[in-house]
Amino acid sequence: MCSCGGPNLFGKTSAMTEVAVPPAGRVAGPVLVVGAGLIGTSIGMRLRELGVPVWLDDSDSRAVDVAVLRGAGERAGPGQGDPALVVVAIPPGSVAAVASDMLARYPEAVVCDVAGTKSGIVAGVAECAGPAAARFVGTHPMAGREVSGPNGARSDLFEHRRWVITPTAANSESAIAAAAALAEACDAVVVRLEPEAHDRAAALASHLPQIVASALAAQLEAAPAEDVVVSGQGLRDMVRIADSDPVLWADILDSNRSQVAPVLNRLIDDLGSVAGALVGHGQSDADVVKRLLERGSAGRARLPDKHGGAAPKYGSVTVVVSDRPGELGRLFAAAGRAQVNLEDVRIEHSVGRLKAFIELSLLPERVDALRGALVDEGWEILG
Amino acid sequence: MCSCGGPNLFGKTSAMTEVAVPPAGRVAGPVLVVGAGLIGTSIGMRLRELGVPVWLDDSDSRAVDVAVLRGAGERAGPGQGDPALVVVAIPPGSVAAVASDMLARYPEAVVCDVAGTKSGIVAGVAECAGPAAARFVGTHPMAGREVSGPNGARSDLFEHRRWVITPTAANSESAIAAAAALAEACDAVVVRLEPEAHDRAAALASHLPQIVASALAAQLEAAPAEDVVVSGQGLRDMVRIADSDPVLWADILDSNRSQVAPVLNRLIDDLGSVAGALVGHGQSDADVVKRLLERGSAGRARLPDKHGGAAPKYGSVTVVVSDRPGELGRLFAAAGRAQVNLEDVRIEHSVGRLKAFIELSLLPERVDALRGALVDEGWEILG
Repeated sequence: MCSCGGPNLFGKTSAMTEVAVPPAGRVAGPVLVVGAGLIGTSIGMRLRELGVPVWLDDSDSRAVDVAVLRGAGERAGPGQGDPALVVVAIPPGSVAAVASDMLARYPEAVVCDVAGTKSGIVAGVAECAGPAAARFVGTHPMAGREVSGPNGARSDLFEHRRWVITPTAANSESAIAAAAALAEACDAVVVRLEPEAHDRAAALASHLPQIVASALAAQLEAAPAEDVVVSGQGLRDMVRIADSDPVLWADILDSNRSQVAPVLNRLIDDLGSVAGALVGHGQSDADVVKRLLERGSAGRARLPDKHGGAAPKYGSVTVVVSDRPGELGRLFAAAGRAQVNLEDVRIEHSVGRLKAFIELSLLPERVDALRGALVDEGWEILG
Repeated sequence: MCSCGGPNLFGKTSAMTEVAVPPAGRVAGPVLVVGAGLIGTSIGMRLRELGVPVWLDDSDSRAVDVAVLRGAGERAGPGQGDPALVVVAIPPGSVAAVASDMLARYPEAVVCDVAGTKSGIVAGVAECAGPAAARFVGTHPMAGREVSGPNGARSDLFEHRRWVITPTAANSESAIAAAAALAEACDAVVVRLEPEAHDRAAALASHLPQIVASALAAQLEAAPAEDVVVSGQGLRDMVRIADSDPVLWADILDSNRSQVAPVLNRLIDDLGSVAGALVGHGQSDADVVKRLLERGSAGRARLPDKHGGAAPKYGSVTVVVSDRPGELGRLFAAAGRAQVNLEDVRIEHSVGRLKAFIELSLLPERVDALRGALVDEGWEILG
């Protein structure tokens, strides 16, 4: 088994081609899943539902036991013959070596991985495996849970989620089709990207937010208890993802370090400018702070809404409800009778009181209809 | 009108005394509200509901017109006599000067402010106003909206919210009672803090998150469109507050710069350590990253839940619903019939599909009951 990392073969920034891959038929088994964690076990469970034979392997024998009990397949062992597809579902730092080993061991199999970074892995396999890399396709199912391991697995984990595949010019058409078939079997939306484009986007949209959430939450660790206790919903929303697995995430961040470091350094520069301006306290300093806040507002406006366009401005209606069973049900039933489509819901519990604020977001032109309907039914509306 | 800033008179870190102030009776009017923005107009509207005479002043005459139309009081003018209470509701950078001017102009009145930082203002008034500062009480109603100005005002803006008051040893008891009565008249929960304790807590719980959200969102401004489009719920939650008013927030951050700069610099140091470790890419570097992620997880666990204790681990049930009117109502009605109390709700719209994922959070021991009830009624449950 080789352990090379290898240079990045994709020097230029590649354009994204977010074109759904055409239906590629059924998954040809048997499928060998290497790594019986959350992702690998979930894939096995889904493939077994479809009747595809699945073999499970993991350096942690107990993880395989759990995955087998969950219905993800049977334990891999001698005499089973060769798989048609190998899914390498292990932390990114080990993928290139294990995938290259699988390509060598099973000379007819297509090998896929499911790690959250792609360039280094694709390049590493190309360097380690040589021409056999034509049978390796990097993929990244964009689904996850705040739990990990086979106990958290579920066969519908990938349903309606994006599943990025990052084929290269070296790939055979049949290998690409096999990767797409795997994603489609899991009811995911297949998105085809260049490896570098995937990693650059992931650095901005996933890896940087994880670092920032963790660093922000880290400031709470040693803070006086009385400072922490006044925190509100804004801070809470920002540190929600700070509860992720430190070992796995350290590996993910390291595996995408060439994309993460530049955008992290740009963020640090911006924060440093604000820190300097706060100490400087002159008129030009105030402009530095204001300019960053303006850029943040402009950047936020670029986030897509659920239909892929820029985020629209929603209106909202905030309702005060008693914090007891059934109240939310009554509220949403009332909203349903008003025939409005809610775009978002936020619940804010008032501190030390038995009340909750429910902020319902909806299209601005429907706000009056919802407010009127709720008032008519006796709800307490703020504003 | 003086314009001094003055040194910080509260050199030592003060302990928080989160003791509710005893009921202090009705608000004695007339009340002069200086600044017809969101907060000032909302206070005026509430006091008018209670029958308290309110006069409104603002350098922007049109803002006063709007506030009068909203029912927040009448325009301040000659011949009205002296107010019993002045509420200075303007951006923090101007509060000390205006409050000191009011103390000099109305020698019997109690003067309060409502700005989001307190030490500099309290110290500034003490320096500018001298012994008259005994009649000034700094306050901070912890309520706000993502809109600003008198059009967004509402009389119930402060209901069930914390309203911090920061009296000093120099204050008269009657001045403290008048400040508490104002907060109570607005149905807020009065919390008494030292000015420095307020500002240190606000820096961590409010001002730092605002800077971080804006800086993170700012990285989206110049990013390629294809990078922005793959962003998910994690990033979206983290930049929600990046849409705040840049001018007001630049002033707030500047007014609390002595508390914000140190915690911002600690955050920058942590981020810089991660950036350095990613470039370094050694074993000790991996430990640096892992350690930050662990600290983040520990810090997040310190956030209080709605009852003031540490945040419990909730269980969750995720339901797939059609993205059309009435579906949420049907879902929550079903949850209500299951007699479970939902602690939180998150809606995630699947991209380009007419489905939404509704994650319902609740006590772990109630998860099975909810899941069973929803399955029985035919809902599509993930996992």
